[in-house]
Amino acid sequence: MTTFQLHPRLQQDSIFIACFELSQLRLINDCSYPWFILVPQRFDVREVFQLDDADRLQLHDESCLLAEKLNAVYKADKMNIAAIGNVVPQLHIHHIVRYKNDKAWPAPVWGKFDAVPYSDDEISQQVELIQKAFPELS
Amino acid sequence: MTTFQLHPRLQQDSIFIACFELSQLRLINDCSYPWFILVPQRFDVREVFQLDDADRLQLHDESCLLAEKLNAVYKADKMNIAAIGNVVPQLHIHHIVRYKNDKAWPAPVWGKFDAVPYSDDEISQQVELIQKAFPELS
Repeated sequence: MTTFQLHPRLQQDSIFIACFELSQLRLINDCSYPWFILVPQRFDVREVFQLDDADRLQLHDESCLLAEKLNAVYKADKMNIAAIGNVVPQLHIHHIVRYKNDKAWPAPVWGKFDAVPYSDDEISQQVELIQKAFPELS
Repeated sequence: MTTFQLHPRLQQDSIFIACFELSQLRLINDCSYPWFILVPQRFDVREVFQLDDADRLQLHDESCLLAEKLNAVYKADKMNIAAIGNVVPQLHIHHIVRYKNDKAWPAPVWGKFDAVPYSDDEISQQVELIQKAFPELS
């Protein structure tokens, strides 16, 4: 099996929004912060530097575009961008909108609080908001 | 004043190793993990997407090169790469070598433990190790 398959833990913790050329854009199911991941659809990649040059640049473009849009749409105080992957090895890049009054500020969000799932309505609202911000993806 | 100046907090918490074309490479003074930062030498930049296209690509190249070298030199179990900046706004990209037996694993390192400073000898060893890994920088 050498084709991309989303890691079951990412499947469980996040909601599909759209596909960029390389990556799936997904919403982490935690209404504490607007929290998104990019998952490059490549088999068996754990680190950005394992991607070939074209994919690396594509991921970089997608990440910058996403961060800039999220920053504008959500009026972020700060964007937090990270490739951690200690628990889920499949490469995924966190893009988290941070506010000075969010509950973990100024700490990073990982491991601070349990996730608070969105309601179905809230998920629809978030997905719609992002799809509207990226009309080229729908 | 519109020229780059290192943020005093980064100055205090880290040790200069070398300059890439765009960024300073610095060692965080915490011997708990091999932990480095890249600081693009640009004035008043907080987010990667605020850099111009050439600088963005240069930073991306420097980050990938650094991560790949650190991964090899330190035989990492996982690299953690992140732009957080909630406390120190000046753009700096963390590159942290993680091991399955390090004291914070699998949690991210921020906010887990107080920094444990290196001895002067240990600092010299780390700096020499990295300068040897990047002979083109010396």
